[in-house]
Order: sequence, then C-alpha cells, then structure tokens
Amino acid sequence: MGFLDNLKWRFATKEFDVDRPVSKEGLDKILTAIRMAPTSYGLQSFHVYVVENLDLKKKIKTRSFLQKQIDTCSHLLIFCARTDKKNISQRIDDYIDLATGGDKVKKLKMQPAKLMMKGSIKMKSDEDVACWSSKQCYIALGFGLAAAAELNIDSCPMEGFDKKAVDKILQLPANLNSTVFLAVGNRKEDPSRAKIRFSNEDMFTHN
Amino acid sequence: MGFLDNLKWRFATKEFDVDRPVSKEGLDKILTAIRMAPTSYGLQSFHVYVVENLDLKKKIKTRSFLQKQIDTCSHLLIFCARTDKKNISQRIDDYIDLATGGDKVKKLKMQPAKLMMKGSIKMKSDEDVACWSSKQCYIALGFGLAAAAELNIDSCPMEGFDKKAVDKILQLPANLNSTVFLAVGNRKEDPSRAKIRFSNEDMFTHN
Repeated sequence: MGFLDNLKWRFATKEFDVDRPVSKEGLDKILTAIRMAPTSYGLQSFHVYVVENLDLKKKIKTRSFLQKQIDTCSHLLIFCARTDKKNISQRIDDYIDLATGGDKVKKLKMQPAKLMMKGSIKMKSDEDVACWSSKQCYIALGFGLAAAAELNIDSCPMEGFDKKAVDKILQLPANLNSTVFLAVGNRKEDPSRAKIRFSNEDMFTHN
Repeated sequence: MGFLDNLKWRFATKEFDVDRPVSKEGLDKILTAIRMAPTSYGLQSFHVYVVENLDLKKKIKTRSFLQKQIDTCSHLLIFCARTDKKNISQRIDDYIDLATGGDKVKKLKMQPAKLMMKGSIKMKSDEDVACWSSKQCYIALGFGLAAAAELNIDSCPMEGFDKKAVDKILQLPANLNSTVFLAVGNRKEDPSRAKIRFSNEDMFTHN
C-alpha cells in the first residue's frame, strides 16, 4: 500500500493510543521524508523539534488549548521556521558550503546563485521573510503527513497553540519560531464522521 | 513502489519532455491528493488552476523569469490562496453547509465551531490571513508532490514568478491570489547533480 491508497484512511487524529507508540523505524522514515522535502532554493529554512518526553508535552499542552493530541501522541514534531534575515543569509552561506564541499572553484561557480539568493531575501520585508520561511515548513509538513499515511501511522497537523509560549518552553534561539505541529501516533478510535472535502468543481479550474 | 521509495528519485525537474505528457489518470490522482490534503479548519482556502493550454503557459512564462518548466510541463498547477477576510467568512458558511448537508439541527450543533472559526479569522490582520491561507496551499502542494513521486511523475514546485502579473493573466477575482506553482510532466533528462540536503543533526533536535 502506498500513500495514495491511504488518503481516505488518514484523518486528523484527535486522540492517540498511548499504549501503541510509533516504532523508531517508522519515526525515522517520517523524518527522512521531511528532510527530503523540496524547499525554496533548497535552503530548508527550518528546524524540527521531535518531542517524546511526556513532561515537555504536558507543558506544551497547557499552551495548546489543552488538546488531547499533545500528550497522547507518540511524538510531537514542532516545525520551527528560521525567520531572521541575518540567519537566512548565513543559511545561504552554509548551503553553498554543503553544495560545494568547500571547494574554492565550485564556490566561485556558485557565486551568481548565491548573490541571487541573498538579493532575493534582502528585497523582502521582515514579515515577508517570516511568511516565506514558514511556508517551507508546510511543504515538509505535507511530506511528513504523506509518509505517515503510507506507513499506516496516524497523524494530526496542528496550528492551535500559543507560538510565543511554545518558543519559551522550548527555549528557542531568537532566530527560530515555532510554526506548526505534526503529532504522530496510532489512533485511539476510528473517526466518528466521514471526511468532508469541497467538490472538484469548487477546487479546480481547467484551462 | 510507494512515495517513500521515490524520495530520492524525485527532483525539482527543470525541463520536461513535451512528447511525454501526464495521462489523465495520473493527473486525476495528483488532483485527488491535493483535494484530500488536510487544511486549517478543513476550509481548503484555495483554488487550483490546472493549465494545459500552451498559449496560456507561454504568457505565464514571460512573467516567470522564462523558466523552461512552464512551457515544457504537461500541466501547470497554479495554487491560488483565498486571501480576503470576507471571502473566508463566506467559505466558513459554505463549509458548514457542506458538513451538515443544510440540516438545520446539525447546523445549530455546529454553531460554536462556526463562531470559533469566524472569531479566529476576525482577530487576524489582513496580512496574517493572507499568510495563513497561502500556507494551506503548501500542505496541498506537498501532497501533490508526494502523489507525483509515488506515480513516477516528475514535478517542480515554483515560487519564482510575478504574482500580480499572473493574477492578471488568469483574470483572477480579487479574492484569489496566485501563490505557488506545481509543474508536472516527465523529465527530459536525469538530474545533473546529487541531491543536496542538510544533515539530520542540522534538521532535528530530539527531546
């Protein structure tokens, strides 16, 4: 069974079975999908906290409208966007180092790409950089959700939490901001209602 | 083969083979994955233009840095976010209608959820609504990319285009804004370099 076979099986799980955690192998596959997700310029402008510790989950739950997913899930993945322009500029340098293995000739060749990337970030407002960066998390979130579905692992994407409070709980550096959660585990029970989706006519126009 | 088997096979395809378009069946599966992607409150606050017409692709290419993907891809999917507060409020009403089938008793039951959603949108600034809405496109973009990979269909996510110009070309209503492209097709040639990704240590912290 692949991801496409499980599109209807998956649902935004509201409560997980605490006695059936996700295996290390399953978690690793989800993290690999997240790491392999494409992102703007390949910069992967985010960092993911993988929270398994129950005390930490309980602290986060108090700032997440007490949603049951938080402390019943097996692992709570917290996507944190790199929102600081200076930090993104450093990320571009790091990317060039990674892509060239530090080779000076290769680096010279990549100079135009580097200047283009830096120029593009410089042109954006702070708010636009923060939004752009956080959107990259969402592609990776999509990949994490798709990986979980393929593996018959349940999941819930979550935006309902106090971002500043969670940043404090995680003691995030100033250049990282919590953006979205992906709770993974195994469902306590099947969904109580059918999936609701707008029609093809509503969603698509063919030109 | 599933999505996870093809994580390394897929890459941001720069040029597609115009003689090998995507089949209707393949396209339908990609669109289904996009439609089934989870979104905030289930609102699916976006619309996707599926462009197959070559003249239209060529017009769009002129406002997309002349990137080859645009007019060599089989289908260009243009994700357009619903960025207008009034339109989102209407979307919430439409969602309630869809979820209840118009049943008055069910609608009454959903009144608290409706008020919560409407209140949450009302609280946000116009910029925050636009960013929140466009992020939902990116989850669906992730699902579209994952579906294509599973089907051995090539793809390229693209942000590099003049959004206002593309809105004009598509004659979008004021409440829709082009946000991100997903070009799909079959690669003209294999990638010329290995995939570059930051390390697990860079990307993840385990707590």
